[in-house]
Amino acid sequence: MQALYWNGRHVRLETAYPVPNADDHMALVRLRLAGICSTDLQIFKGYMDFHGVPGHEFVGEVYAGPTELIGKRVVGDINFACGRCAWCARGLWRHCPERRVMGIFGADGSFAEYVAVPVTNLHTVPDSVLDEEAVFTEPLAAAFELLEQVHLQPTDEVLVLGDGKLGLLCAQVLHSTGAQVRVVGKHPRKLELLRKLGLHTELLTDWHPAPTDIVVEATGSTAGLQLAMMAVRPRGTLVLKSTVAADHTLTLASLVINEVTVIGSRCGPFSPALRALEHKRIAVLPLIDQIYPLTAGEAAIAHAARPGTLKILLRH
Amino acid sequence: MQALYWNGRHVRLETAYPVPNADDHMALVRLRLAGICSTDLQIFKGYMDFHGVPGHEFVGEVYAGPTELIGKRVVGDINFACGRCAWCARGLWRHCPERRVMGIFGADGSFAEYVAVPVTNLHTVPDSVLDEEAVFTEPLAAAFELLEQVHLQPTDEVLVLGDGKLGLLCAQVLHSTGAQVRVVGKHPRKLELLRKLGLHTELLTDWHPAPTDIVVEATGSTAGLQLAMMAVRPRGTLVLKSTVAADHTLTLASLVINEVTVIGSRCGPFSPALRALEHKRIAVLPLIDQIYPLTAGEAAIAHAARPGTLKILLRH
Repeated sequence: MQALYWNGRHVRLETAYPVPNADDHMALVRLRLAGICSTDLQIFKGYMDFHGVPGHEFVGEVYAGPTELIGKRVVGDINFACGRCAWCARGLWRHCPERRVMGIFGADGSFAEYVAVPVTNLHTVPDSVLDEEAVFTEPLAAAFELLEQVHLQPTDEVLVLGDGKLGLLCAQVLHSTGAQVRVVGKHPRKLELLRKLGLHTELLTDWHPAPTDIVVEATGSTAGLQLAMMAVRPRGTLVLKSTVAADHTLTLASLVINEVTVIGSRCGPFSPALRALEHKRIAVLPLIDQIYPLTAGEAAIAHAARPGTLKILLRH
Repeated sequence: MQALYWNGRHVRLETAYPVPNADDHMALVRLRLAGICSTDLQIFKGYMDFHGVPGHEFVGEVYAGPTELIGKRVVGDINFACGRCAWCARGLWRHCPERRVMGIFGADGSFAEYVAVPVTNLHTVPDSVLDEEAVFTEPLAAAFELLEQVHLQPTDEVLVLGDGKLGLLCAQVLHSTGAQVRVVGKHPRKLELLRKLGLHTELLTDWHPAPTDIVVEATGSTAGLQLAMMAVRPRGTLVLKSTVAADHTLTLASLVINEVTVIGSRCGPFSPALRALEHKRIAVLPLIDQIYPLTAGEAAIAHAARPGTLKILLRH
């Protein structure tokens, strides 16, 4: 099959990459669309020391596996857990220490014609959800993880730092709760998307930090945390959404003095994300900047890496 | 009056320092005992850029102020709040942005014959509590703050990193809940104190981090956070108890990947601390290493700064 392969130094299109095996536990999914995520770009800088087929955002149809699933249009959770350990038993299977993570750690991903996914990870996509929407399920689930971890009160003031792909999704999910959400970013074009949806936005250059109940750090940069710490109120909550591989240098005294709660937040639940897409409560189509064929994957990745780019998709 | 004065470079005993004023809102407390805290030692390294009389742990008796308080034996909260702002109205007066903090920021402290304290900050000490116990109310309240902020479940495994003064108090407070507490430290003598109380302890040199539900970082060093991050389980809670003024350099990716909650924790509630002392549920007397007269304050501070020292008190 065709697949983009990352060998630790370059991404190259392989034309005879082995098709993964399927069985009763692992379904073979024929890809329709895959999304390029900032984590993929971090991988190309050495994150997780991954070698293989990258990609963890996808929508496709089941090509092989359990009979009842064949032909179903699916999305899938990227954490391949063991299902047997204490973490899995507690429902914390996304943190299973034995897990492989699609396109990130120990498992090939979705930048290919086919991807193998545990059957238990699959979710069927409602008919009314377009492929171009369904491909956002995984990052949208990561945005819904905020609501799994933080009890957002309707009276809370919320600040999202960062107007990248994840920032725009987080902002919409938070806005959907009825809380008062403000987004600070660098890109007028992206902030305009949110303003059209009724969110309050501000350019970073015009922004002055004021004490805020809940701050979501989604800048993807090491500078973001320092800004977030300036903006969170005493006893407030700061959610870290960026996986920044680089070292931070910072003084944590203010966290202690102000008794701030910092919550790391990663992958989230697919069901509420799919429901939100089905009910058109989150706008994802305006986030698509361009769709490339898989065969133009190298150009697609280069485009995704250009500052200010929103979602780049690969079509199979 | 006699007072130890920190001018930004030296601590000196002043013999004619002005006695503070008292009125209906501010009581004048004649000191009996004051404790030297690690924060005081940080102040002598430049923390908070404080100039004045340090000291925020004390027990004394009311010498001037409202009639009904005269002669009462008291301890007092160190945060002098404005009582009028939105934070105070929400009950978050310890985070009042207008606050002064006794012996730390904008208010003289307890290394003196007298200290002025807002009447609303005072708590009378039950007769059965010795002065040598009551002087621990403030740091013990800071340990109880852990239980204000974290819902500790009886099934939780808890790790306290650090066997300093605050670590020993935190460990005992956590142990009192029935949770399983382990303390890792550097000093056999201090760990022995805890073992006698039934806690499980380990020397840092023998310790291997294993995933733990709740980790309390009370080492007072920048290295402590890195160790704590190695020990906290995915979705676990890490409480920062050390106010370390120095910069940390660290990778926060693991906080995000493991969805750890980090909670800064500072001052706490006096009432449960006084109750615990009254009911002899927390052992504080074994933590006293030496009591110096106020006039030997410089020697007392030098002693407190020696590695491995527990509590040094000043008697007035």
